[in-house]
Amino acid sequence: MRMFLLPIAALLSPGSLLAETRPALSPPEIVAVAPASDWVRIAPADLLVMDLAPTAASTPRRVVIQLLPAPFSQGWTGNIRKLAAARFWDGTAVVRVQDNYVAQWGDPEAEDAAKARPLPTDLAVMAESAYTTVLPKGTPVVSGASRGDTYANRTAFVAGWPVALDRVKTGGAGAWPIHCYGMVGAGRNMSPDTGTGAELYAVIGHAPRHLDRNIALVGRVIEGIEHLSSLPRGTGPLGFYETAQERTAITAVRLGTELADLPAYEYLFTESASFARYADARANRRDAFFIRPAGGADICNIPVPVRRAK
Amino acid sequence: MRMFLLPIAALLSPGSLLAETRPALSPPEIVAVAPASDWVRIAPADLLVMDLAPTAASTPRRVVIQLLPAPFSQGWTGNIRKLAAARFWDGTAVVRVQDNYVAQWGDPEAEDAAKARPLPTDLAVMAESAYTTVLPKGTPVVSGASRGDTYANRTAFVAGWPVALDRVKTGGAGAWPIHCYGMVGAGRNMSPDTGTGAELYAVIGHAPRHLDRNIALVGRVIEGIEHLSSLPRGTGPLGFYETAQERTAITAVRLGTELADLPAYEYLFTESASFARYADARANRRDAFFIRPAGGADICNIPVPVRRAK
Repeated sequence: MRMFLLPIAALLSPGSLLAETRPALSPPEIVAVAPASDWVRIAPADLLVMDLAPTAASTPRRVVIQLLPAPFSQGWTGNIRKLAAARFWDGTAVVRVQDNYVAQWGDPEAEDAAKARPLPTDLAVMAESAYTTVLPKGTPVVSGASRGDTYANRTAFVAGWPVALDRVKTGGAGAWPIHCYGMVGAGRNMSPDTGTGAELYAVIGHAPRHLDRNIALVGRVIEGIEHLSSLPRGTGPLGFYETAQERTAITAVRLGTELADLPAYEYLFTESASFARYADARANRRDAFFIRPAGGADICNIPVPVRRAK
Repeated sequence: MRMFLLPIAALLSPGSLLAETRPALSPPEIVAVAPASDWVRIAPADLLVMDLAPTAASTPRRVVIQLLPAPFSQGWTGNIRKLAAARFWDGTAVVRVQDNYVAQWGDPEAEDAAKARPLPTDLAVMAESAYTTVLPKGTPVVSGASRGDTYANRTAFVAGWPVALDRVKTGGAGAWPIHCYGMVGAGRNMSPDTGTGAELYAVIGHAPRHLDRNIALVGRVIEGIEHLSSLPRGTGPLGFYETAQERTAITAVRLGTELADLPAYEYLFTESASFARYADARANRRDAFFIRPAGGADICNIPVPVRRAK
């Protein structure tokens, strides 16, 4: 009774099963055997590295975020690069953790003009129209096994990211990134404010797709999400912490290019045969534990594999 | 920049907005103004109450679970009642917490025949066919605003629960409960084992719908999910803890009928006008923060409101 999924190690070992009785590969097994040529290195310039204060047991807590590539959210990610270079987040904190929703961080005094940290003066101000992007014609779009979306005409993977697509009359497809688990967005005040990128949140629950096109996504957590998702939930409205003592301090946020000791990361190329196989297996589990493949998967149930490069 | 959703208290206060400029009610506001007649009391006999060991700061940690009603999963919930009466879980532990997936608890020695706790001898053994249920003809089924499901012909609410439906040729609709955030299921070993109910898990991430009809759901956490979702993630395969010290001890699991001091709980009747209004607002956010209503919602984004009775 102890497990409801076999350990990956057990499935990867040759074991005693004859080849002809061996079940189909599971999604993690497909990822494990994907050739090196199916992985894409993530540029350090596209990484944002956030160090939280160590735990009481002195365990370090590093959260690695991959920023969205062009053409998505470039105004916000440009601001985020400036904010990191200005050391804006050093000494700020995780201010809100709402269960099944988001963990949010930034300047705890942002609402108090007398105490708020100054923002760099050259931040871009984005229009709400920038929540949606027109993909250049010819942009590769891969459905994987995602189908039957409730929130968009179609969902697909674009350059390694989960994206929703609507037809637009001219100039290609209207597209926007999707609020899947682990995605990072830019908090904002009431419309028409669109946020600068100084206040960020990560999704730590069921995909809040109603936020799509209502708030800017800027990236995703590729390592260390557990340092945010396992934080104590705030007890104030919307999961804000009620006292400063409850917050988790942020010691530093740096771009990947500033950190000499950062490992290299890579993602499974979403146009590769391995990804197609992986996505199909996520939608149709045929490995030994499963008795009834689902026949489909929503796009947030096909997380793009990301790992430290070998 | 501090918030990306207004505090509920602010929206509920009369404020200074004129009536004609006031935005539409948010889902929590609709729930707050629902009349008492739209709420259904949950019988204490349908509650399973799990007390985890207090935190280092002596904070109590109680998790309240509502068991699935007939006709769903009755073999497993019957076993769970017997296991609670036998004090089976007292002194067991949370053994696994896998990020964006599940927290799982039970006898840490279940796999070791020499050390495993004895199970009650009169537990039922369920067939895999019991993962799906034929709804009696005439069972009220409410779609709410759920549409466009990837995993089933249709999703709907049945007596306060998220349920997937397929047409069956005779005898009504084939139905099964859905693995939404907070749902509780019965761990099992490889098929044809279906689990006894002695090993349980709660969903703490994006709905793992591929588990639907592959494993039995038995209920949902209605209070205290944060005591499971904010636990440290296990570092072994599948999020199992690697040492006994990392586990969180379970001090007691009792049926609601055994606890004199348990508050009363109620859920918003899914056939009520208030629920229809709430579900529509979840699918089409028209409250002040939102600029673009989604036009739909997947069923796991319409969590059934549950609260302590007033």
